[in-house]
Amino acid sequence: MSFTHRKSIASHLHWQAKFPPGDAANAMNMLSAREVAVPPYKFSDRANKITSSVIREILKITERPEVISFAGGLPSPVTFPIELMRKAFDKVLDTQGKSALQYGPTEGYGPLREWIAANLRKSGAKVAAENIMLVSGSQQALDLLGKVLVNPGQPVLVETPTYLGALQAFNLFEPVYRSVASDEEGLKPEAITAELAKDAAFLYALPNFQNPTGRTLHEGRRRALIDRAIALNLLVIEDDPYGDLRYRGEAQPSLLSLATQAGCDNVVRMGSFSKTLAPGLRLGYIAAPTALISKLIQAKQATDLHTATVTQMAVYEVIKDGFLDTHVPRTCALYRDQCDAMLAALEQHMPEGVTWTTPEGGMFLWLTLPADKGYHSMTLLDAAVAKNVAFVPGEPFYANESVPNTLRLSFVTVPPDKIREGVKLLAEVIRAA
Amino acid sequence: MSFTHRKSIASHLHWQAKFPPGDAANAMNMLSAREVAVPPYKFSDRANKITSSVIREILKITERPEVISFAGGLPSPVTFPIELMRKAFDKVLDTQGKSALQYGPTEGYGPLREWIAANLRKSGAKVAAENIMLVSGSQQALDLLGKVLVNPGQPVLVETPTYLGALQAFNLFEPVYRSVASDEEGLKPEAITAELAKDAAFLYALPNFQNPTGRTLHEGRRRALIDRAIALNLLVIEDDPYGDLRYRGEAQPSLLSLATQAGCDNVVRMGSFSKTLAPGLRLGYIAAPTALISKLIQAKQATDLHTATVTQMAVYEVIKDGFLDTHVPRTCALYRDQCDAMLAALEQHMPEGVTWTTPEGGMFLWLTLPADKGYHSMTLLDAAVAKNVAFVPGEPFYANESVPNTLRLSFVTVPPDKIREGVKLLAEVIRAA
Repeated sequence: MSFTHRKSIASHLHWQAKFPPGDAANAMNMLSAREVAVPPYKFSDRANKITSSVIREILKITERPEVISFAGGLPSPVTFPIELMRKAFDKVLDTQGKSALQYGPTEGYGPLREWIAANLRKSGAKVAAENIMLVSGSQQALDLLGKVLVNPGQPVLVETPTYLGALQAFNLFEPVYRSVASDEEGLKPEAITAELAKDAAFLYALPNFQNPTGRTLHEGRRRALIDRAIALNLLVIEDDPYGDLRYRGEAQPSLLSLATQAGCDNVVRMGSFSKTLAPGLRLGYIAAPTALISKLIQAKQATDLHTATVTQMAVYEVIKDGFLDTHVPRTCALYRDQCDAMLAALEQHMPEGVTWTTPEGGMFLWLTLPADKGYHSMTLLDAAVAKNVAFVPGEPFYANESVPNTLRLSFVTVPPDKIREGVKLLAEVIRAA
Repeated sequence: MSFTHRKSIASHLHWQAKFPPGDAANAMNMLSAREVAVPPYKFSDRANKITSSVIREILKITERPEVISFAGGLPSPVTFPIELMRKAFDKVLDTQGKSALQYGPTEGYGPLREWIAANLRKSGAKVAAENIMLVSGSQQALDLLGKVLVNPGQPVLVETPTYLGALQAFNLFEPVYRSVASDEEGLKPEAITAELAKDAAFLYALPNFQNPTGRTLHEGRRRALIDRAIALNLLVIEDDPYGDLRYRGEAQPSLLSLATQAGCDNVVRMGSFSKTLAPGLRLGYIAAPTALISKLIQAKQATDLHTATVTQMAVYEVIKDGFLDTHVPRTCALYRDQCDAMLAALEQHMPEGVTWTTPEGGMFLWLTLPADKGYHSMTLLDAAVAKNVAFVPGEPFYANESVPNTLRLSFVTVPPDKIREGVKLLAEVIRAA
């Protein structure tokens, strides 16, 4: 890789850190205004708060085939049920073509709403089809929840660290973030004080195999969290895209089911078919109490009318007779091997003082470099890419104060032999830093 | 139809008129707070500004099969190329399954961006693939443009009347609307004064077969509009979902091509495959200048990552070899007949003093009842539905002061014999009112 190329990552990320997005965008507007004509538009304040995802920028820079990338969260395409999806689109268009291609209800395809509600009821949650709205992937759920619940300047509670894509979605609605203290077992329920929760729109949490850390919140903390949220009348958003991808340990009760047990409906749950079927379908769901789901449906109507009918019908066709019961365990077997390969390689190659999480499932683990040696994973990325291995630096996952000696590794995209090779390379880069 | 049922439309619409949505939603929150527990959330200010689409509410009430509905804008399903779409999904999943089901670029599928850009260049616009972003239907284009360009309280210029769905999308970003004076030939360019355009985010216009009026803006006014917009440095959003559905008269140059001719890039163009292929696919596009499309892509990334890959690839497969060149004329022939049937029936049955537009294309025409007889199309709808015929009252299409003696009729959903029968019934209802 050329010097210029290497420089581009560091300078890009440095530039992002140095100039808050709003100022940078304004500065650019002013520049282009001086150099050419004044553009016939100004970005809104909220638009000045967005920048491109750091992850997507890194993915672009590292997409050379010789780079072993632990950066992206792309599910392995060998898990996609391509032939079944093909047959399902074929059948839906053959037998119900007119309704599959017509405008549909904003809330989604009825039988699929029923299926999702029935599935959630199995886990002990009290949910009817009327509480379900289909969305164009989990990311849209985040957008709609931000739209409907967040006023500019309002607090939103997040884990430390938290999912970068959620911060990007919520940023458009201009919240202030309050970080909930967390340790290796996830967020600490006792950190959610009345003061922290005051005026908050909600707490956003990923209890299973969290992105980015791979941590799982266990039952004791889940119960404590729900009790606390009820006491403080705080809405909890449970984002669970990875919950079905468990490789070891006991399944934990969902926050939604615990709220049902407590006789309270203060949990909104988000789910996705991106990790169990395929992400390119862009299909996820929100389960929410009646008054809230009604407002979310109105917001979705104004946002994109509805999610593609043909995709919803095809997905229902694939899953309606229990396909996921046999398919998900096969995906888990594959990812478990890759996760184990990464854990073993880390054990074998990483220098003294480097620590990492041991995820019970999901797609990611979290590496912490010795705190006392001045490591900064943003600059480490340059050296890593020069050696043909990539990861995502930890900093962008922190809503407030960040920990620079952390990084995220994905184990789902790359096969075991490449994982071993990539971890060895990464260990060398860390040693040399 | 029962009294209760009839009453529900009137009271629903009356209630909407009497209570601004924000107040109503707050009142309901307070009620439920008193009666049950305080909900663990409050809607955002912007969420309090949304209500469900009046059209969708009417559609629900009038979906009994015996009602002849001129209310909805559902394309006729006989125009959907079902078999071709089936083969296209089949081929895409058979030959490119892994990429069709994987995460894709936010801006959309490359070859489809190229196709759209080439198509726009044919009309004289200066557009590269890099200026195109695929979106989940035109409605999403409206959401993203509002997100990126509108600050709360900022003026947005709209036609009189204008597309209700655009008002719903923009409402979430809390603009104030300034209505541009219009006559039977569409908006009056000279009405766009410096005072009207001051601080405006943009002018939103539907120059071809406008929804709801069916009016077309002709070349002279288009040129005057573009000149004026350039002089005032005003951004123009050209929404053109129906442009290909022309039944008579000369095709008019797009606003985008006129801006290119004038050497200026102050026009953003929106298009859709909903009317030329099928709406259930949820596929449309935005063409915009480089700096603006980059920001829109960032906003879409935060909003839903990208539009379903498999749908984009299947649509490209269907259209890449010129299918629309033979398909669209067939759709036009069908809709022309239905449009003519409606125009003839109106001529035959409507009482003296009722006037209507003669659309050159599209899906709608606009009826004006004699102004001096106190007609109110909102209350007229009750009587109409009791006689098994439905339409959409004109009021919700006005951003500011509304004209109560107007209504919108769609001629695309119902076949000619039902159109004749429905218009006859509607004429009787008007006579009896």
